[in-house]
Amino acid sequence: MSLPAALPEAERDIDARFFADWSGMVRGVPGALYRPRSVEEVSAILRHCHQQALPVTIQGGLTGLAGGGVPADGDVVVNLERMAQIEHIDELEGIMTVQAGATLQAVQEAASRAGWYFPVDFGARGSCQVGGNAATNAGGERVIRYGTMRDSVLGLEAVLADGTVLSSLTRLVKNSAGLDLRFLFIGSEGTLGIITRLRLKLQPMPASAAAAFAAASDMHALACLLRDLKRAPGVNLTAFEFMSGEFVAAASRLAGRSCPLDGRYPWYVLIESAEHAESGGALQRALERALESGRIADCAVSASLADTDAFWQLRHSIPELLAGLKPTVNFDCGLPWAEMEGFVDRVNAAMRARYPDAAHLFFGHLGDNNIHLMSGPHRVEDLHAVEAQVYAQLRGREGTISAEHGIGFIKKPFLGYTRSAAELDVLRRLKAALDPRNILNPGRVLD
Amino acid sequence: MSLPAALPEAERDIDARFFADWSGMVRGVPGALYRPRSVEEVSAILRHCHQQALPVTIQGGLTGLAGGGVPADGDVVVNLERMAQIEHIDELEGIMTVQAGATLQAVQEAASRAGWYFPVDFGARGSCQVGGNAATNAGGERVIRYGTMRDSVLGLEAVLADGTVLSSLTRLVKNSAGLDLRFLFIGSEGTLGIITRLRLKLQPMPASAAAAFAAASDMHALACLLRDLKRAPGVNLTAFEFMSGEFVAAASRLAGRSCPLDGRYPWYVLIESAEHAESGGALQRALERALESGRIADCAVSASLADTDAFWQLRHSIPELLAGLKPTVNFDCGLPWAEMEGFVDRVNAAMRARYPDAAHLFFGHLGDNNIHLMSGPHRVEDLHAVEAQVYAQLRGREGTISAEHGIGFIKKPFLGYTRSAAELDVLRRLKAALDPRNILNPGRVLD
Repeated sequence: MSLPAALPEAERDIDARFFADWSGMVRGVPGALYRPRSVEEVSAILRHCHQQALPVTIQGGLTGLAGGGVPADGDVVVNLERMAQIEHIDELEGIMTVQAGATLQAVQEAASRAGWYFPVDFGARGSCQVGGNAATNAGGERVIRYGTMRDSVLGLEAVLADGTVLSSLTRLVKNSAGLDLRFLFIGSEGTLGIITRLRLKLQPMPASAAAAFAAASDMHALACLLRDLKRAPGVNLTAFEFMSGEFVAAASRLAGRSCPLDGRYPWYVLIESAEHAESGGALQRALERALESGRIADCAVSASLADTDAFWQLRHSIPELLAGLKPTVNFDCGLPWAEMEGFVDRVNAAMRARYPDAAHLFFGHLGDNNIHLMSGPHRVEDLHAVEAQVYAQLRGREGTISAEHGIGFIKKPFLGYTRSAAELDVLRRLKAALDPRNILNPGRVLD
Repeated sequence: MSLPAALPEAERDIDARFFADWSGMVRGVPGALYRPRSVEEVSAILRHCHQQALPVTIQGGLTGLAGGGVPADGDVVVNLERMAQIEHIDELEGIMTVQAGATLQAVQEAASRAGWYFPVDFGARGSCQVGGNAATNAGGERVIRYGTMRDSVLGLEAVLADGTVLSSLTRLVKNSAGLDLRFLFIGSEGTLGIITRLRLKLQPMPASAAAAFAAASDMHALACLLRDLKRAPGVNLTAFEFMSGEFVAAASRLAGRSCPLDGRYPWYVLIESAEHAESGGALQRALERALESGRIADCAVSASLADTDAFWQLRHSIPELLAGLKPTVNFDCGLPWAEMEGFVDRVNAAMRARYPDAAHLFFGHLGDNNIHLMSGPHRVEDLHAVEAQVYAQLRGREGTISAEHGIGFIKKPFLGYTRSAAELDVLRRLKAALDPRNILNPGRVLD
């Protein structure tokens, strides 16, 4: 470590893009903005804020949906966008060393140029930062195959609240020399430190994907299909994205996407399998068996890249749906497979009774236990009640109120629905141990 | 949670099997032994010990090699062997709920009976307990494909030092609702709580494995081979176990195993790939290319289960080598691939100069960055000096003094060689936050 850097000059004339995130639900005007260029500058800023007990909001690409990066009025904001360097790629082992402010897309592209593949991927890739991806344990559409961000971070460097630089930049697959400290920061939403540098595990380029679009009459059939495909020889699932019939209908109406299947069904699923030429259509054969046994009601197998694109465009109608149904409330709940159908039924019944004119669109990543709901349009004054109604259906169950977006400010009132009092107490003990003055992202996750 | 259980009666007449672990390097006589039958009893025991500030040693199957489960004289020992129930298997999703004292083998067999596969595996399977496997983040021979124990634990229940039952028994692949608390206990070596129950992720049964035994002239060639195999279409590596020429010679001499290849080479590697019938000998084709390009010097592809067994018997000669070379010192270092050859050269030079009559056998799991060294026979009074000499070669490098065995008592003096002062300080803060009276496995990992 070099000598401590001097405290950089704070910016006071601050662009409005630093005031809010993609949720659009909260907004704040910072008192000062820092955009450090080095870990030493981050350290100097936090040392200063720690001494003065100044609340700090940490910002990545501000693509979050939980308000975690939105400052309270007057906060010191530390935005990582000027620390965006891809520092090194070990082409032999497939490991990238990168500053936290690099965008996900820059990481993907640099990996690709080196003959490797970085598998975490989702719509915000061009704006979100890998540090934020790690701090929120981002997932996306390939979790079923590659896991979440947690599974791609081999090591990291973080700056603690008091300015201490904690380098846990291991690059080893296995390390049993004392507790692994990565996991204090991955998914912490910036409450325990600022991630400044990452060691990322790259993957071999996947084989080209076979894709299919299938219909099923109930969620249990989808769950059985997923189990069968996981076990089918030669099938190597990379996506299993389900959508309700209402989702597909709305995507047709609002985004002009056509459904690859005739007829109307309660559930659809987009399936991708990275198959080698030698595996001889393993996905197709498995789906033929599923049709014969009645597990699925209909199925279209992609015959071209254009077909596959059309399947994904339907799944990716989210921006048009958000625009056409606003204001919406967006959920990213998690549940065991066996509980999903009951959850959908209960939520649907309650929502249709109380909000009969709104659309309630379910979709998600079944293999990740993640079910999304987009519900709207609602009156702005109803948004909190809509949240409360849905989260009430998770209370005391083996699920989560957030499978991927995080808690931030917005979901904080509901955290106790799926985390126990003992868990919340341990979270508070960790916060007190690492940030005794409560300066890092105060008010997020916990009070 | 049911009502608090009463404190069970402590056993005072204690069998010597609770005095030591498989390292054979440390030994202690407990003052009291508890073998609780429920999490409520564990909670009652720890509440009592916390109130009285009694030091507690936590024991699984005592198969460890770092002394972590060995009591100091007079310690209260809590052994989990009576909490060994496989409580539930979700056959749809492939999730097992199990008490921490179940043996690894019992878990593997129960998974198998339910049509699933539990991938963590190593020689101690019949004695070690899954709770201990999690507490030490055990690895084994399939890490290259399935990761370590950390990657197989979806959720856990633990009892904190003060008796609080912390249930983080999530069974979800993805959960972003506050920090994930699993990682405080996985790899903690019992210093932050007693793991009492686990939710384990099961895997589909693997396809039958193609196997090969190859020879190479240097470690760099092995690393390039591993990278190429990771990228080869249809190859699905499940093992890549390297051995030095000296290892193979000693296994021949001391265990009567014959090498599948004629000629003598500096390095050998046992390769396994789970290949479906349709993939048409992908491993064999990839190895033919490696032979043509000179990446490997010779290769034998298994033509039968008997061939594959013979390859593995050679790799599994460890008990005979330990018996034939005792007293040995056994290392489980970790290094980036590019640093392994230099490490071997430096250690070999130093060890041969100082201990010319001992054997120094290198082997390990290259894909996990894990290199083992078995060195012996040594005089008992030299054992610590041998350790110091090897660990000195890791100091300040991007490696680890323990890739899988853990720190326990035995490696504690060397922990600072590969963990920074800032990291050790955070470990101490976590310990103080969760175990303020320092009763859980005191003296392990850190002072």
